[in-house]
Amino acid sequence: MNQLANRQWILAKRPQGMPDASLFELRTTPMPPLTDRQILAQTLYLSFDPTQRAWMAMDTYMPAVELGEPMRANGILQVIDSKHPKYKTGDLINYLCGWQEYIVINPDVRALAPLNKIPPHLDPALVLALSLTGLTAYFGLLDIGKPKRGNTVLVSGAAGATGSIAGQIAKLKGCRVIGIAGSDEKCGWLTRKAKFDAAINYKTEDVSQQLAVLCPEGVDIYFDNVGGETLDEVLLHLAMNARIVVCGAISQYNKPEDLYGIKNYLSLIIRRASAEGFIVLDYLDRAAEGLLCLNKWVEDGKIVQNIDIQHGFEQIPDTLKRLFTGENLGKQLLKLSDPPLPLRKNRLEATIFRLLSAYISWRKA
Amino acid sequence: MNQLANRQWILAKRPQGMPDASLFELRTTPMPPLTDRQILAQTLYLSFDPTQRAWMAMDTYMPAVELGEPMRANGILQVIDSKHPKYKTGDLINYLCGWQEYIVINPDVRALAPLNKIPPHLDPALVLALSLTGLTAYFGLLDIGKPKRGNTVLVSGAAGATGSIAGQIAKLKGCRVIGIAGSDEKCGWLTRKAKFDAAINYKTEDVSQQLAVLCPEGVDIYFDNVGGETLDEVLLHLAMNARIVVCGAISQYNKPEDLYGIKNYLSLIIRRASAEGFIVLDYLDRAAEGLLCLNKWVEDGKIVQNIDIQHGFEQIPDTLKRLFTGENLGKQLLKLSDPPLPLRKNRLEATIFRLLSAYISWRKA
Repeated sequence: MNQLANRQWILAKRPQGMPDASLFELRTTPMPPLTDRQILAQTLYLSFDPTQRAWMAMDTYMPAVELGEPMRANGILQVIDSKHPKYKTGDLINYLCGWQEYIVINPDVRALAPLNKIPPHLDPALVLALSLTGLTAYFGLLDIGKPKRGNTVLVSGAAGATGSIAGQIAKLKGCRVIGIAGSDEKCGWLTRKAKFDAAINYKTEDVSQQLAVLCPEGVDIYFDNVGGETLDEVLLHLAMNARIVVCGAISQYNKPEDLYGIKNYLSLIIRRASAEGFIVLDYLDRAAEGLLCLNKWVEDGKIVQNIDIQHGFEQIPDTLKRLFTGENLGKQLLKLSDPPLPLRKNRLEATIFRLLSAYISWRKA
Repeated sequence: MNQLANRQWILAKRPQGMPDASLFELRTTPMPPLTDRQILAQTLYLSFDPTQRAWMAMDTYMPAVELGEPMRANGILQVIDSKHPKYKTGDLINYLCGWQEYIVINPDVRALAPLNKIPPHLDPALVLALSLTGLTAYFGLLDIGKPKRGNTVLVSGAAGATGSIAGQIAKLKGCRVIGIAGSDEKCGWLTRKAKFDAAINYKTEDVSQQLAVLCPEGVDIYFDNVGGETLDEVLLHLAMNARIVVCGAISQYNKPEDLYGIKNYLSLIIRRASAEGFIVLDYLDRAAEGLLCLNKWVEDGKIVQNIDIQHGFEQIPDTLKRLFTGENLGKQLLKLSDPPLPLRKNRLEATIFRLLSAYISWRKA
């Protein structure tokens, strides 16, 4: 294969407030030839996630992206050349590939997140939409929230990629589910399409007042994606022994110098409640379980997903901003390319996959 | 028995800032004659606890004390007359008796906290010092904190009645224990008498700096009695999977209009940590277990307790204030009277008690 030119979006500056296109610079570099046990992959889809704001800014649960390096991002890629026995050309993979068209990977070297093969009969956009954010919802709600039939579950950032899945899993578990979102369109989608029992538009309604009406017995599980003032209000509406799943705080990511201080945390004592943080990376050894289950629920129409797909390498920096302005409805993806090579479909693999999915999704619902 | 005159300290006003004597009024009322299944008891000791500030101010986990009623307080009393078959004159009891010299109780009627008999061979001041605050330390540390050998345990309000016991139990469980307190005298007591591994004087030292030095691997369990700014600093020094036992927030009780906002709570995500609130009242069905165990540890010299005893009915309102100025070192009690009647000691009961204590304290250490 001739030497490829690889376009990358490089992190040039650390964000102060809302991240915008000025933080990134375009760089074109030639791809090096493959050495033994390496693979060359082409990016098909990129995922956009609020946590990327933290990766750009500072060391958190992962080291910060280094200035001058491609912006870190989760993606779906196709293997287009391989010197590794386990990966064939045509294979689809999920990897933290970054904002670039091509990448050389040595699958044997430990990376920040594992390299996973994607079953070729699945829609790669759907898999990417479900991975990380869907898994975050799955493990956060089921393992940290531990919902029981009849619980009242409140979800913030409810129309987002994680929140909408978390709420719908809670419905499958027999809970009453209320969502908080930032527009009437999003609230309408939650109650009509995602079958939430109610939704609160925090931009036009008084959250505390609505919670008093909608959750007179209090909130048993709060799946929190936004943090800040909303969290502080929800603390005053906890049921006894409530659990707060501390998943994220998108309201705070763009103002690290001016964090909102949580005043009502003593409700944890009065309500004998707990707040627990988690990161989906700790659950990636169970990723297959979660993806099989989520994929089956989506296939069966038990969970609906909004996927917002932008197009083209040039649009990458602007697409990130959509997450923080709230322009996106649901999971934000960007498509770079169709698979350049034919997919290697395997009927036996697909059958095993379907049987496993059916079993896990039946056990978990 | 002739009609007794009962002196009471009545809550006359709700506190704004620090509670002082001006909030209370003295009232003398005649005690009514006993009816069937009632007992008459005389107060020997009163306990003073930070949570009383909340009881005075507003409905919390208990209804607020009503204006015009005696201030609510935990005490040790002696039964001096009884029309109830289970209670004999001379029995010692532990009850939320309030700030008064006498009380009539119907033991069959459910109250805010249960009425418990005290074994007569024990020192009533020691039992009162261990009840509630000692039990709070016992259940909070063991059931919520779940310490493991080798854990680093940090305790705030460490020289107080609850904190000092929590830290010493952690030492018995094989943990490294660091205390935060508000004077060199208290810190000296912690390391010399209570055998803490280190102590930080938050009034003269930089807590965050000291934590970086003393807990380079982070804090596994934070047993928090003070809340506020100290909690916010500790959040930045958590170990992975740390647990915060949210026991109290004495720094915040006197300024409900100006609560400190916790900014660093996102450490719960980064460190996969949890914060859990609890109230000892939920554990009172296991009070006997805790008191037997704590009493044995004190008897064996494995736990030391500082008991600060004030004297006299007139001193009651001023004694409450000592908790909030930090004047008290350890558990604050006030003695009203020696037992007016002889104690009914029972050698068999005492033997059973000692055997049980030895067994439980051996299992829990």
